[in-house]
Amino acid sequence: MRRHRSNLGTLLHHVHVSGPLSRAALAERMGVNRSTIHGLTAELAAAGLVREEPPTGTTGAGRPSFVVVPESQRVSVLAFDVAVDRLTAARVGLGGPILDRRQVARSRAGADLDTVVRELAGMGRELLDAAPAGTTVAGIGASYCGMIRPGDGMVRYGPEMGWVDQAFGTELERALGIGLPVAVGNEAHLGALAEYTRGAGVGSPDLIYLHGDVGVGGGILVGGKPLGGEGGYGAEVGHMLVNPVGGRPCLCGSAGCLEAEAGEYAILEAAGRAGEFGREAVRAVARDAEAGHLAAAAAVAGIGDWLGIGVANLINLFNPSVVIFGGVLREIYEVAAPEVESRIAQHAMPVSRERAKLRVSGLADDATLLGAADRGFAALLHNPLKVE
Amino acid sequence: MRRHRSNLGTLLHHVHVSGPLSRAALAERMGVNRSTIHGLTAELAAAGLVREEPPTGTTGAGRPSFVVVPESQRVSVLAFDVAVDRLTAARVGLGGPILDRRQVARSRAGADLDTVVRELAGMGRELLDAAPAGTTVAGIGASYCGMIRPGDGMVRYGPEMGWVDQAFGTELERALGIGLPVAVGNEAHLGALAEYTRGAGVGSPDLIYLHGDVGVGGGILVGGKPLGGEGGYGAEVGHMLVNPVGGRPCLCGSAGCLEAEAGEYAILEAAGRAGEFGREAVRAVARDAEAGHLAAAAAVAGIGDWLGIGVANLINLFNPSVVIFGGVLREIYEVAAPEVESRIAQHAMPVSRERAKLRVSGLADDATLLGAADRGFAALLHNPLKVE
Repeated sequence: MRRHRSNLGTLLHHVHVSGPLSRAALAERMGVNRSTIHGLTAELAAAGLVREEPPTGTTGAGRPSFVVVPESQRVSVLAFDVAVDRLTAARVGLGGPILDRRQVARSRAGADLDTVVRELAGMGRELLDAAPAGTTVAGIGASYCGMIRPGDGMVRYGPEMGWVDQAFGTELERALGIGLPVAVGNEAHLGALAEYTRGAGVGSPDLIYLHGDVGVGGGILVGGKPLGGEGGYGAEVGHMLVNPVGGRPCLCGSAGCLEAEAGEYAILEAAGRAGEFGREAVRAVARDAEAGHLAAAAAVAGIGDWLGIGVANLINLFNPSVVIFGGVLREIYEVAAPEVESRIAQHAMPVSRERAKLRVSGLADDATLLGAADRGFAALLHNPLKVE
Repeated sequence: MRRHRSNLGTLLHHVHVSGPLSRAALAERMGVNRSTIHGLTAELAAAGLVREEPPTGTTGAGRPSFVVVPESQRVSVLAFDVAVDRLTAARVGLGGPILDRRQVARSRAGADLDTVVRELAGMGRELLDAAPAGTTVAGIGASYCGMIRPGDGMVRYGPEMGWVDQAFGTELERALGIGLPVAVGNEAHLGALAEYTRGAGVGSPDLIYLHGDVGVGGGILVGGKPLGGEGGYGAEVGHMLVNPVGGRPCLCGSAGCLEAEAGEYAILEAAGRAGEFGREAVRAVARDAEAGHLAAAAAVAGIGDWLGIGVANLINLFNPSVVIFGGVLREIYEVAAPEVESRIAQHAMPVSRERAKLRVSGLADDATLLGAADRGFAALLHNPLKVE
């Protein structure tokens, strides 16, 4: 039964990632014939996971083919996103649409585990109460701005929130109490996967995603697979030392880390906004810089220099096909691209950078949330009908 | 036939990597029964690739099992190693023994493609002439101290030798003229693989290998696979910018790169030996430092600081299980371990470093050469009997 289970999951994965696909397209992608697709689709349809719709027109290339459509409104997951300045919960449908969402802003950094879990669980219950009758919840995923232990979703270290070894995954699971585990991932790891699946990194298996929150997170794909390392804690880009002599102190206890030089505190301070907080304050600096305000422009250029050094190092180390700027780094990069590119030209080896593209996130503030949703869908996609 | 070919290659791979293995051990590793091993071994023995020897004693665990031994003396490859200060050629037997070796030292950096190829080909021919009758040459591998294009062995960039886009692989193949392609790899990439296969990294699939030649090369394994990146040029550790303000100029045209701060020129200059050249001069500094000479000790400690910053960054980025110091960094690390470890404690995240081991190369100056040999063996191990 393993091959059958695997084919069911592969078909569902294709429509989850690509949206509606004709039987012919699925047959080609999966290397099986159309009658196999027909049989698999019938099973998935009987389980309420997909439906078939008649073709809307002829393509000129052979007879028209029925279209397999994910049941996005009926089949969903709960996805949570813990950022320093904002908690988000959403119900995300098969295929990726955000069906419903709750969000609370926070006015300052830091909140304890109990508070965060209580707020998330409350939003999660609201989403479930508001879901139409007949909706299924296939899983739960969560994104957190810190280092996450694979398996149980323990936050090993989240300096921006001041968390060390907090049992986030198990506590959120308990608080939700709907009998489903919570798959937790680091926000930038999840953002990298989401950008690869349906954002600015589609087709780029050697991908670096930089996520600007209070700190600078990193998610790296090597040959299409997340760089985890020995314990799953890889890609801590924000704590790469870039300024060893007289660097700014970092929340991690070191100084001169990339996120100390190019993170939120550095940006706001350089722009004369020390004491302000959160992504909207950082975006205001980027807008001011674009509008020609001198202090803001100088601040963003300075940040761009450090960011460019960090990216140059990553290009030398990973020879990526694409580097994606996400979170508030999206807006920072849009203004500081000249400084970033100049540093890359200066410090990245020509052979290493000759085909590396720089892009902004295609999913904007939803990259991490959509990555969390995909964690929630993983079990369903692995074994859609729970076939043994 | 594919499964059969694959089983033959897998068995040969096991004895190549592990040396003589009993049929019982092979059966267990490969998940097949002993009679299958018997059949595969018979085919490989008929082709002269392995032989079977009677068991030397009973183990107490079941009946004693014949031992499958690689035909190391008969089946070999040519392996070449181009370092800045030394050219090496060797005949390496199946199973990894270096059967014969030629070496020429160079007294200064830089040599053109024609000269290097002529010298290597001359040594290669000598090795072939000296090989016993009945010896087979199964392939050719070469290690080069620069960025290598996969496929054709073009040296895209080798700043230490001053090479840009030099057709090293094809020229060496032509000069040898024995009808076998030359598989070329970057020295540190090959060193990483060799340490993983039979050195200090056995059992550590998330591995970083740092190779000190004139520069600092890097080879990185992620989940047991070499980190190549989009074009195969990943792991350029030596050009990570570690000293952005007032750093030493680097051969690559930038300044403050890890290899500018921790490479041969920096070491020799700091120790008052500017103008000297090559690994033996660097090793003399390490020996002097160990013996308590103040200038040498201060030089090595300073190098250790920069090296520690570089390693801390790599630990944050890769969460490796092991970091291996090879080439002259072996001797440098043995003296500068306190500085390296202090920097790691200061700049690497505790969660990222909690299980990272620091080790010196298990293969010493032969790591890169043995990695090249394994490239030479790849085709044989993929398809030992050239079964279609």
